[in-house]
Amino acid sequence: MKIIVDAFGGDNAPVEIVKGAVEAVKKLSDVELILTGDEQAIKNILKDEKYDGNRIQIVHAPDVISNDESPTMAIKQKKESSLVVGLDMLKNDESIVGMVSAGSTGAVLAGGLLRVGRIKGILRPALAPLLPNLKGGKTLLIDCGANMDCKPQYLEQFACLGSEYMRNMFGIESPRVAIISVGVEDKKGNAQVHETFELLKNNPNVNFVGNMEARDMLSGDFDVLVADGYVGNVALKATEGAFETIMSVLKSEIMASGLKGKIGGALLKNAFKRIKERMDYTSVGGSPFLGVQKILIKSHGSSKAKTIVAAIEQVKTIHEAGVVDKIKAYSASVLDQGE
Amino acid sequence: MKIIVDAFGGDNAPVEIVKGAVEAVKKLSDVELILTGDEQAIKNILKDEKYDGNRIQIVHAPDVISNDESPTMAIKQKKESSLVVGLDMLKNDESIVGMVSAGSTGAVLAGGLLRVGRIKGILRPALAPLLPNLKGGKTLLIDCGANMDCKPQYLEQFACLGSEYMRNMFGIESPRVAIISVGVEDKKGNAQVHETFELLKNNPNVNFVGNMEARDMLSGDFDVLVADGYVGNVALKATEGAFETIMSVLKSEIMASGLKGKIGGALLKNAFKRIKERMDYTSVGGSPFLGVQKILIKSHGSSKAKTIVAAIEQVKTIHEAGVVDKIKAYSASVLDQGE
Repeated sequence: MKIIVDAFGGDNAPVEIVKGAVEAVKKLSDVELILTGDEQAIKNILKDEKYDGNRIQIVHAPDVISNDESPTMAIKQKKESSLVVGLDMLKNDESIVGMVSAGSTGAVLAGGLLRVGRIKGILRPALAPLLPNLKGGKTLLIDCGANMDCKPQYLEQFACLGSEYMRNMFGIESPRVAIISVGVEDKKGNAQVHETFELLKNNPNVNFVGNMEARDMLSGDFDVLVADGYVGNVALKATEGAFETIMSVLKSEIMASGLKGKIGGALLKNAFKRIKERMDYTSVGGSPFLGVQKILIKSHGSSKAKTIVAAIEQVKTIHEAGVVDKIKAYSASVLDQGE
Repeated sequence: MKIIVDAFGGDNAPVEIVKGAVEAVKKLSDVELILTGDEQAIKNILKDEKYDGNRIQIVHAPDVISNDESPTMAIKQKKESSLVVGLDMLKNDESIVGMVSAGSTGAVLAGGLLRVGRIKGILRPALAPLLPNLKGGKTLLIDCGANMDCKPQYLEQFACLGSEYMRNMFGIESPRVAIISVGVEDKKGNAQVHETFELLKNNPNVNFVGNMEARDMLSGDFDVLVADGYVGNVALKATEGAFETIMSVLKSEIMASGLKGKIGGALLKNAFKRIKERMDYTSVGGSPFLGVQKILIKSHGSSKAKTIVAAIEQVKTIHEAGVVDKIKAYSASVLDQGE
């Protein structure tokens, strides 16, 4: 199974990305990786690593797309960048199943659209991270930043894309879909929420359970949370910010509690570590860009080797679950019905 | 200083509300309260309390507006409700400076608009809670739920309303205003954010510092966070939900850590208590509905006596800071300029 890794995407590229690739081939026996990026730089990192040389290939790409560049411009102009070289191979080589990049979110999304392309019938592909929930399971948030201005029809499709993902990845027969709103009542929310509510209520392919208040995002009572990319991103980032804030306040309060606090903190060190692990949504790898022709994973910009391993594993799981084919079949069947 | 308290608004009404009123008159020597609601029920609670009888007056209002009712319908039809009776007195009696209600948010907001009325020139009054930030200060979020569908001009006014509030309440000469967006760069966000960005950039009355990512809401780097009511509500509720989630996970991890965890938890009990206090945005009272003719505070639905005391104190502080007059003067000066 061939998977591309953008070796020059992300804050810790290329070292952590290449190390992650090495760990991944050790862990996943049926995976072959293609690293895109500056060949010499990648070789310099690889020379100190022990791995099966046949299973990591390098494709030279001297350019890098940074976070500061206009995503669309960069994708169109930087054809020798690690991202674009990877995406073009992903698009054109049938033997390659997916790609991972921790690079600029905007560029990965623009590249997914412009280089890999949408599945026929999908209006807007969407970025869909999995969030850990209070019941120990995962909740999919779709869209969390790919589409800023959405028609209700896009949100309806997000619900379908998310449902296919959760159904095939986790065997949830009838994923519970909610709209992120300002209350649970049917009439809550803005005009976009109201219209989406009506569409989802009447969509036979979606197990729509209604509006949800953002405070219940992590309750575990829902499998798929639907929002436009702006609102989904705000909800995700506010959650992340709140976690970081409380961990920081916790630390300062422990430090301020004198010896008692320090002993208490030391005794709870493992508990705190587990909380961080439980709440770390990047531990699953990255966010799939659902609705494009191939598997494309946007890994967190701060990804280290461990996250890259998880993201590569995620490509493998999505491939084995046949998610992209299921979305294609779904889209074709809905189109057949003239919808 | 006369302040009205809706004795029948909120999950813990009337007992906690009335008890809060009694505590408030004990704490604040220059405050007189008018409680609206079922007279006999209020008297039954008051008879066990010791307080200066001259400083708490009851105005009988037999009806109650519930959370399930259509806010606008309820405000129009339930003229004998504790909320509407209070709002009408607030509107008509010049000696009354403000009102507190922990009742249905929708009804309080609809009532503020329909019964008390907007300040001339203010397009849309907005609900503006104060959030505790990491630097130990407060950050104002405006709007957090009053206006679901907003024009950029409304958001521009929210920035002005919020700035007046922070300037006069906390003596911050030039409050730093940010838009809640999906990144800090100028071009981030949806169409509404883009248009608001241009308006704020060119508004000489606002110290606009640009876009902000929702993860930095509580950083303390901003004084006023601007968003439409839908997005602001999602950001606030996601933050609340994340806090609750992490406190719940913390508890379960401590319980799962055996004796070590229990001792650690016991040693950190005070630290955890302080964290809850530091992060509890209801401890400041409630959210002012800025832009209406009088001071109107929406207190959290779950308010207990302590929160009601804080909300009454908040009315007093807002009154003494002259916030409503400052907003009126600001609005008049902008209108004079033909804007």
